[in-house]
Amino acid sequence: MEIKIQKKVLQVNETEAEKSRKFFRQKNVFVLNMMSSPGSGKTETLCKTLTKLMPGVRVGVIVGDICTTNDADRLVKTGARVTQINTDQFGGDCHLSASLVLDSAEKLGCDDLDLLIVENIGNLVCPAEFDIGEDSRAVVLSVTEGEDKPLKYPLMFRVADVAILNKIDLLPYLDVDRDLAVGNMQKVHPRMPVFEMSAKTEEGYEPWLDWLKLKVFEKTGKGL
Amino acid sequence: MEIKIQKKVLQVNETEAEKSRKFFRQKNVFVLNMMSSPGSGKTETLCKTLTKLMPGVRVGVIVGDICTTNDADRLVKTGARVTQINTDQFGGDCHLSASLVLDSAEKLGCDDLDLLIVENIGNLVCPAEFDIGEDSRAVVLSVTEGEDKPLKYPLMFRVADVAILNKIDLLPYLDVDRDLAVGNMQKVHPRMPVFEMSAKTEEGYEPWLDWLKLKVFEKTGKGL
Repeated sequence: MEIKIQKKVLQVNETEAEKSRKFFRQKNVFVLNMMSSPGSGKTETLCKTLTKLMPGVRVGVIVGDICTTNDADRLVKTGARVTQINTDQFGGDCHLSASLVLDSAEKLGCDDLDLLIVENIGNLVCPAEFDIGEDSRAVVLSVTEGEDKPLKYPLMFRVADVAILNKIDLLPYLDVDRDLAVGNMQKVHPRMPVFEMSAKTEEGYEPWLDWLKLKVFEKTGKGL
Repeated sequence: MEIKIQKKVLQVNETEAEKSRKFFRQKNVFVLNMMSSPGSGKTETLCKTLTKLMPGVRVGVIVGDICTTNDADRLVKTGARVTQINTDQFGGDCHLSASLVLDSAEKLGCDDLDLLIVENIGNLVCPAEFDIGEDSRAVVLSVTEGEDKPLKYPLMFRVADVAILNKIDLLPYLDVDRDLAVGNMQKVHPRMPVFEMSAKTEEGYEPWLDWLKLKVFEKTGKGL
């Protein structure tokens, strides 16, 4: 029964996602859906990314959380336009839906944006199933989570277009094999670009920024 | 619509959970539901816990994952009886349901067990909503996930009876405030016992083992 009604929910979301995609095309804005487990460092990665991209690329952010505006409070300090979705008023939803994102994007305003980043709810399972009308999906994996996560949560890594292996500054203190982590991601998703980075030390940011700028430019003709 | 059908799913699960609870009472086994984000160290914590508890306490484990038998392969080396549930055959479910757990418990056999530990799927959201007929719930939070997670995922910390703050060996390399992490857990769930531990260095295990042995004894009269 669960599977049947899950399918129904996904169908409804699919229709909404098409509406969102059309809206984002009209606004000529590139939309990135950023997903990961709780605490992988999405927000810190975004703070650094925004600081490095702006003002050359004009960025807006929609942040999803069940509760609190902690992440939005951090992101707004970069100077980006930020809005927070809290899903506790929608039953504490474990993912962002296309209609929630579209509502927020309309409120945020997209006319003067080149790039809209959606920081999804920290969850390595459910957000992978919900198309939000994005152009690309990025998954962030912290090295502290262990090398086997791509094999245990394959859907997330299969639907992602790009991956960030984060917190590499902690590798000396962990029994984690960095190459195996990357290898497992590419086992699940062959030829997916994986950027090995540290949001803290800012190691490894350039290739990620280049990838993102190229994607924005390919869709919108802006920002390069 | 999502909230309405979610409620229906939860109602069906509630009925199943009552069946499970009755089964576990008949078998006189204490059932612990262990939950956390992916990569918080549940399996390593369990490996150490089992080694320290057995043979005085007879332990069985049900491990939930979407894919792979990695965790079961690790746990079986402790000598415990272990069974793995993979939810990829059930639509890649993001949580264990009461009926899945009961099926597995019957297959595993509970007649000669004092303690059954269910390692739930790595997800800080959905498993908190699904009663599996357990006696107690433990949540594991890795210090690498940051202090604010209890505030951002309050339901999980509200339904938990006990918490483990794990990987404290990594604190010297992180900008994380250990006391604030504990404080945030107890803000969401006042007076919840929080054990600060490292599965790697085995620091802080005794109070956790004492808590667990007491709980098993209180229900079953066994294991102390």
